[in-house]
Amino acid sequence: MLLGDLETPALVVDRARVQQNTAAMAERAATGGVALRPHMKTAKSAAVAKLATANHSGAVTVSTLAEAEYLAEHGFRDFTYAVCAVPEKLDRAARLQKESGAQIQLITDSVEAARALAGRARDAGETIKVLVEIDSGEHRTGLSPDSPSVVETARAIHEASHLDLEGVLTHAGHSYECHSIEDVKRVAEDERQAVVGAARLIRDSGLECRTISAGSTPTAVHAESFEGLTEIRPGVYVFFDIAQLGQKSCRIENLALSVLATVISHRPEHGRIIIDAGGIALSKDTSASALLDAGYGWVFDAGGRERIGDLRVAVADQEHGYVESSSSPDRVPFDRLPIGSRVRVFPNHACMTASAYDSYAVVHDGDEIVDRWDRIHGW
Amino acid sequence: MLLGDLETPALVVDRARVQQNTAAMAERAATGGVALRPHMKTAKSAAVAKLATANHSGAVTVSTLAEAEYLAEHGFRDFTYAVCAVPEKLDRAARLQKESGAQIQLITDSVEAARALAGRARDAGETIKVLVEIDSGEHRTGLSPDSPSVVETARAIHEASHLDLEGVLTHAGHSYECHSIEDVKRVAEDERQAVVGAARLIRDSGLECRTISAGSTPTAVHAESFEGLTEIRPGVYVFFDIAQLGQKSCRIENLALSVLATVISHRPEHGRIIIDAGGIALSKDTSASALLDAGYGWVFDAGGRERIGDLRVAVADQEHGYVESSSSPDRVPFDRLPIGSRVRVFPNHACMTASAYDSYAVVHDGDEIVDRWDRIHGW
Repeated sequence: MLLGDLETPALVVDRARVQQNTAAMAERAATGGVALRPHMKTAKSAAVAKLATANHSGAVTVSTLAEAEYLAEHGFRDFTYAVCAVPEKLDRAARLQKESGAQIQLITDSVEAARALAGRARDAGETIKVLVEIDSGEHRTGLSPDSPSVVETARAIHEASHLDLEGVLTHAGHSYECHSIEDVKRVAEDERQAVVGAARLIRDSGLECRTISAGSTPTAVHAESFEGLTEIRPGVYVFFDIAQLGQKSCRIENLALSVLATVISHRPEHGRIIIDAGGIALSKDTSASALLDAGYGWVFDAGGRERIGDLRVAVADQEHGYVESSSSPDRVPFDRLPIGSRVRVFPNHACMTASAYDSYAVVHDGDEIVDRWDRIHGW
Repeated sequence: MLLGDLETPALVVDRARVQQNTAAMAERAATGGVALRPHMKTAKSAAVAKLATANHSGAVTVSTLAEAEYLAEHGFRDFTYAVCAVPEKLDRAARLQKESGAQIQLITDSVEAARALAGRARDAGETIKVLVEIDSGEHRTGLSPDSPSVVETARAIHEASHLDLEGVLTHAGHSYECHSIEDVKRVAEDERQAVVGAARLIRDSGLECRTISAGSTPTAVHAESFEGLTEIRPGVYVFFDIAQLGQKSCRIENLALSVLATVISHRPEHGRIIIDAGGIALSKDTSASALLDAGYGWVFDAGGRERIGDLRVAVADQEHGYVESSSSPDRVPFDRLPIGSRVRVFPNHACMTASAYDSYAVVHDGDEIVDRWDRIHGW
């Protein structure tokens, strides 16, 4: 089967590029002396998880318990659910631990939540490992690294009969908003210092802190030091995307994920080609826009080899994408893209785009569909 | 089972409000003397399709062929696929017609595409009804109503052995961008005149034009005249959303769709509560922002009865929503919303939010889950 045989819109992944990206990050972690716990929030696919954990413990990070349950069915046994847990989520994690023998580490950022988790773990009769989340500057979840609550929360976990204090974790999500590699390097160093400093406070208080976990793709790629960290948790690097390209976390030949779409209408009077990939097929994420004129994605030839001029999806209605030139309506090559022809859209933000699909059509540096990888969605 | 028993994030629909909304639109169409062909792009659910077509022919509009196939399995037999068709889509529509006995009307906006469809319908040995799409001002797909291509395209359809010229269709999608009811009324009148005018050209050329179809939710709600139209195709009115509220297409008590979410972290120093509904659970659509400070949705109490102050989801990361006050960090009621408590987020744009879920938890003006409605996603 060839790409041309797919119905559109279709989610296409290039296995050769995923292998390149996952091998490079594994090498980067090994060189830096840290474990890699790849974040499955992007791919949500057992096949990608296997590539990302080749020659590796198999430990992964997840953004939903559905990801953990799905990956447990595919043989994975070591998860960090990197979203602050509430008691209901602990119940479900405890069930998965009991039923699969897997381990699901949870995270928390307050004494109250830690105590609530403690009560629920005791009721479930299951011991759960917990990490204290540290805010390294994103100001989403996590405790300030110098807050007295860090040690108090660690102690509440340590003292609970059915919680096991595993360590500290942070995510410098604000690295996605950096406008230069220098900015990313600075955020990476803040991230490292925040979590290493919090671990020091915990250890100084006499408690153990085995895991010191940090990482986003930009900081994992650009950090000058991983000193003191025990693991990193990048995610989007398995595919990369235009947002990461804008941040220089990757080169164009690393982009592994794209949406195959069909030209359905020509509007020459408006300098516009309409494709059948819109806001659901591409997502409405525009996070790359701070750095590049990315719209909802860059438009390449159907083979995914070359961008067509400076075309991008400028507008995304539910099922319609408006392909326009960044510079001039005269640069839209209507002759090259007749109605019924195909293009590949490399998305703005891979995690969001992939979330609309149940599977990947897999190519390997070519047009032949060599595999079909499933993925999980929902919660 | 009660709302409180659901795991979060969960998609909640209030059946009483859907019934109210669908009955009101049916009444509006009847009063206006037009058929209602409700657009299933929003709900993608057989249960909602049944409410929207109560005492009705059962004719519906779809945005994907997957919707048509799913609804055909649930007994629906009359579809308009309201996205310009290419030959591959015709093949699939023809298969569905053959296998289910349903009728799938397609649309096109060029002579070339009409000819390509004609060839493919002949090859498939299946007669397909086709409408000419007219651009009434959105400039997405469609022919300008006064273009000579309108009649040429109609003729190409009429002359094809296996295509049947059904009529003309338009969608004034730019009504979503209107800032006042007066603006919407003007767009509704443009929409009506465009498609009625195109139908006249076709009839004047000696061809038949049975169906004259228009409609978006704002124009269906606010149009002063449906004269000359045979049907309207609103969609989001089944649920409404904050974008439609901003446009005054509905009142707050019409909002039928919301996401139940759990508070997972407090950041009082940043005037911020974090919930477990982020960019996937809510979508990254911000189309309401032109009229209201809607963020990714307004935050209500868990019962969905009352908005909490002026809280909205200001930032949506993949699995985290940042709940903040529109006016002041001091107006975030941390005491009222402890970690583990629940809120209901009424989304910015219902079509995009619902697309992340496989089913609806159904309430009926209360907290009890009275039903579970499935929905279709993908293409």
